Amino acid sequence: MSKATQPVTHNPVERLETTISQEMRQPLPGSRRAWLHGEQAGVQVPVRSILQSDTPTLFGGEPNPPIPVYDTSGPYTDPDANIDLNTGLSTSARSDWIAQRSDTDQLTAPSSDFGVRRLQDEATEKLRFPDVRPPRKAAAGKNVTQMHYARRGIITPEMEYVALRESMRLDELNQAALQSQHPGHAWGANLPTKVTPEFVRDEVAAGRAIIPANINHPELEPMIIGRNFRVKINANIGNSAVTSSIAEEVEKMIWATRWGADTVMDLSTGKHIHETREWIIRNSPVPIGTVPIYQALEKVGGRAEELTWDLFRDTLIEQAEQGVDYFTIHAGVRLAYVPLTAKRVTGIVSRGGSIMAKWCLAHHHESFLYTHFDEICEIMQAYDVSFSLGDGLRPGSVADANDEAQFAELETLGELTRKAWSHDCQVMIEGPGHVPMQLIKENMDKELADCFEAPFYTLGPLTTDIAPGYDHITSAIGAAQIGWYGCAMLCYVTPKEHLGLPDKDDVRTGIITYKIAAHAADLAKGWPGAQIRDNALSKARFEFRWEDQFNLSLDPDRAREYHDQTLPKDSAKIAHFCSMCGPKFCSMKISQDVRDYAKQKGLSESDVLDAGMQEKSEEFLAKGGKLYRRA
Amino acid sequence: MSKATQPVTHNPVERLETTISQEMRQPLPGSRRAWLHGEQAGVQVPVRSILQSDTPTLFGGEPNPPIPVYDTSGPYTDPDANIDLNTGLSTSARSDWIAQRSDTDQLTAPSSDFGVRRLQDEATEKLRFPDVRPPRKAAAGKNVTQMHYARRGIITPEMEYVALRESMRLDELNQAALQSQHPGHAWGANLPTKVTPEFVRDEVAAGRAIIPANINHPELEPMIIGRNFRVKINANIGNSAVTSSIAEEVEKMIWATRWGADTVMDLSTGKHIHETREWIIRNSPVPIGTVPIYQALEKVGGRAEELTWDLFRDTLIEQAEQGVDYFTIHAGVRLAYVPLTAKRVTGIVSRGGSIMAKWCLAHHHESFLYTHFDEICEIMQAYDVSFSLGDGLRPGSVADANDEAQFAELETLGELTRKAWSHDCQVMIEGPGHVPMQLIKENMDKELADCFEAPFYTLGPLTTDIAPGYDHITSAIGAAQIGWYGCAMLCYVTPKEHLGLPDKDDVRTGIITYKIAAHAADLAKGWPGAQIRDNALSKARFEFRWEDQFNLSLDPDRAREYHDQTLPKDSAKIAHFCSMCGPKFCSMKISQDVRDYAKQKGLSESDVLDAGMQEKSEEFLAKGGKLYRRA
Repeated sequence: MSKATQPVTHNPVERLETTISQEMRQPLPGSRRAWLHGEQAGVQVPVRSILQSDTPTLFGGEPNPPIPVYDTSGPYTDPDANIDLNTGLSTSARSDWIAQRSDTDQLTAPSSDFGVRRLQDEATEKLRFPDVRPPRKAAAGKNVTQMHYARRGIITPEMEYVALRESMRLDELNQAALQSQHPGHAWGANLPTKVTPEFVRDEVAAGRAIIPANINHPELEPMIIGRNFRVKINANIGNSAVTSSIAEEVEKMIWATRWGADTVMDLSTGKHIHETREWIIRNSPVPIGTVPIYQALEKVGGRAEELTWDLFRDTLIEQAEQGVDYFTIHAGVRLAYVPLTAKRVTGIVSRGGSIMAKWCLAHHHESFLYTHFDEICEIMQAYDVSFSLGDGLRPGSVADANDEAQFAELETLGELTRKAWSHDCQVMIEGPGHVPMQLIKENMDKELADCFEAPFYTLGPLTTDIAPGYDHITSAIGAAQIGWYGCAMLCYVTPKEHLGLPDKDDVRTGIITYKIAAHAADLAKGWPGAQIRDNALSKARFEFRWEDQFNLSLDPDRAREYHDQTLPKDSAKIAHFCSMCGPKFCSMKISQDVRDYAKQKGLSESDVLDAGMQEKSEEFLAKGGKLYRRA
Repeated sequence: MSKATQPVTHNPVERLETTISQEMRQPLPGSRRAWLHGEQAGVQVPVRSILQSDTPTLFGGEPNPPIPVYDTSGPYTDPDANIDLNTGLSTSARSDWIAQRSDTDQLTAPSSDFGVRRLQDEATEKLRFPDVRPPRKAAAGKNVTQMHYARRGIITPEMEYVALRESMRLDELNQAALQSQHPGHAWGANLPTKVTPEFVRDEVAAGRAIIPANINHPELEPMIIGRNFRVKINANIGNSAVTSSIAEEVEKMIWATRWGADTVMDLSTGKHIHETREWIIRNSPVPIGTVPIYQALEKVGGRAEELTWDLFRDTLIEQAEQGVDYFTIHAGVRLAYVPLTAKRVTGIVSRGGSIMAKWCLAHHHESFLYTHFDEICEIMQAYDVSFSLGDGLRPGSVADANDEAQFAELETLGELTRKAWSHDCQVMIEGPGHVPMQLIKENMDKELADCFEAPFYTLGPLTTDIAPGYDHITSAIGAAQIGWYGCAMLCYVTPKEHLGLPDKDDVRTGIITYKIAAHAADLAKGWPGAQIRDNALSKARFEFRWEDQFNLSLDPDRAREYHDQTLPKDSAKIAHFCSMCGPKFCSMKISQDVRDYAKQKGLSESDVLDAGMQEKSEEFLAKGGKLYRRA
């Protein structure tokens, strides 16, 4: 019996106790944690600092500074943090911020019927997170969204936190390094030279950025999603009716944040959605998103036509009180749009979109998500759950890209954005999907126009349909482009897309692939300081500082592993040539000869052209062999 | 002792006899070979035809046509072909074309000193291809390049062959399918609605395209490289002083063509470069490129300063008479440009470029490749070896992109292009390298302007430096874009780039990744019929024709393997739901409900909005559960 079809027989709680391995607790190779301290109490932003060795003597011998990088891994990589999956991450700093605002009530029990029932359910007791915390909720008449505060001119600790996190105070530390960067082409984005708390506040107030941070998820380290900030990535996890356990999903979440996921969506569709989610949120340092309609459908036995507004409403409250930070809500799938998909090659491929389409047809009624949208906003603002307005009619094939159904829905999402903003709710907009390259920019431009610059959050897009098994790549091509054009967050695609559920290694591949796309986009936009890490890695490469090259890379373990397959010995890592060419053919080596020659002789172009240089070339010949020692 | 450091003790010839496995001789899954016949004798173009099953009854039951795809795999996938690696591929058709032109002499022995010596060398006898064929050469005063014929108005069989190969007569077979495609954005390329032999001739005559086809490589199936044709990809193979054997390289070449490499470069740098090349060319159905300076350097014990024009010249003739189809020649690395690289982060990263830079400095003399360029042209035209003018000063890091050194060399390559064209030599131009996205288009535009629309052939470009281990992906992002902008051929990058030599699985990953980039570019440019395969695969996906979905993909084996990891049973492949969501959540299933509903009821948008539709929705409810049978 293969792993995929084995029944889950172990006790997930027991397994969770044992799976927080040393491997997951190690700092990343060559890295140590540094902290940036803000002005407001408890604002301490972790930064990963990648240490570098000195340049070898023969290349000049200078020291190389530590390279600061944005860190999503949370306390797991902090050797000083106490971690116990059964109690969850520490909540201290953010709990204080929330409490000090004095605009929330501490409830004694969940407000949702399902939440109450599930706490008392004996059948799932063994699966339950040991210490479920009673929820908080906005006090009567209060609105607790970051947008609400921003619009009132308040700079919350969360805003100060993300300002430091985005800028890492690079402007103070690496002035020369900051300037060693190509000018970007930002397509109208307004990238700040320095991210200040005021800038963050203004972007959130304008709706151009969101800080997804439910008051019931105080474990998270705040982050921001918007066109004028670093491009972010999301990793999807979640079991299905067919495969995987709670423990595996929690483990995937931790690995995902270690590798660089900025947010994680829990797309579980199995029997224990509620319990799985509690475990994930309590242990997650990044915002968690969900698609509540999946659980609602589970509650009606998979019969879409039996969904009701009351049941959906109860599900929203249930999840909001657990601490979900953003909800995908497919409120743009209107009854009138459904027939527009009938002639498509791949119809409706969004699960949420197809559920709502089926409901609309079965009842011949406008979607209850659309008709009850104001009431949804009231729930969102009571916990600060951000909207991720779902693209239920996104194209599922190149053929269906940019069609009438897709763009009709996008316009409705713009209408709903305005409505959500009237409640001071935070909003981002989901986008496709499958789009050939020449049609990608139209998606970005139309989103900005129709949705008033609300942050765009796309799945890929995949630029061709013909490579199942490699859709992380078909989509990274599109993701890098749309990120460059202004997309704020890229939802990863794994190699298993269209074929199966991703395992841990697929999650790793998907995340690193999307870190590449997001970083390529930051470079192309000209995000200040984005090129520092590229420059440092390339310098290390040129100087054959192999360990530094590995440590500066997005996946140090993989880089080291590949290197060692060809030249496994430690001595090879201090060799002054590459495994590809061997010592004789090493272009880096020859190139350093050129550099040394030019430097020592104070050569300029005109010197080289000077006929009197014959003597100098003889000197070079005489010295040439002595510049290097073979390792 | 690891594989990488093991000495080569087996007899490569014996190994070659055994490594042409059944696995390599099988047609690709679900495929059969079809032939397009031209008007000229022997013009028979293989096309791979992917067979499809009928649409399941519940989706309509219609038959689905075979999908023709461009086939690079040569006779290996033809069950009717006799293959023996020790005799090489059949040469019949193209040998006749060459002989019938009556402009070549059949020599009795190689013209190069090295070629002669090596034929008589006892030490390498065991490694030698068993039956080395004496070479052909242009008769005195003759020029045998495809460009020469084209400029004289001649349509060669090679030209007719590539015309059929590019168009596959899709215009005759699939008129409706051809029209189901998004308009492209071709950035000034002139894509023909039908590729005629006349069009091919005119493009070759103008220098906008090349047909690399040495008269000593009659085994090859002609192909064309140019902006107004399908985007091509190259795969690099080759052993180094450190690792791998002849047999492994031949095997990689065959696998590379099976997976889709349009050309293969043999970058071997070990002791048996000459013998390795002979084995590869004799068995290669695709053009083979080399970098002759690598072998020349080997001949002088790795001491660049000891290189001479005479030695290089002999090497060119040696390789031309073996049948190499294109030579990378770094004739643009001029003495005056070398100091321009001194302040770079990564200096000169091209091996050929650094060898020539070192020679120029050591001798304080202009590069002999530049000063002897006319003589090189005379060799090229005598065998029809195409130039691939090397970018010896390409940037090796994002920091060095688009700098003075790079663009100075590019201008010189333009000057050399004109000179080569004055000899009717075919030319393509090599390009970078490492380039962030916002600087890619400048590379393409400048190449077109400076090199008069000669085909561009780039390595990637890599769009960030921070992901060693994933540079197939950092570069596919750039490759897809530059392919879209007009680059004619994309040189693949494998996951091992910067870290080690690629093994067979890395070659596979590199090739499929680059097939994706090239195809994404064809779609974006609007190549006629490019979308047929996407549309077919997406339709198969929607209809849960799993086997068709696998077979239509770029890597059927990988797609099947990934699917089976989640749902290994055969029954799952006829299930009408995906492994990801299970039956209840299947959006495809719900989507078909929507489609059936709309179709059966003759629904239009206004119908749906009609209040009188309540009755119809009740019908739908009553029938809803019956549309599908669970597998």
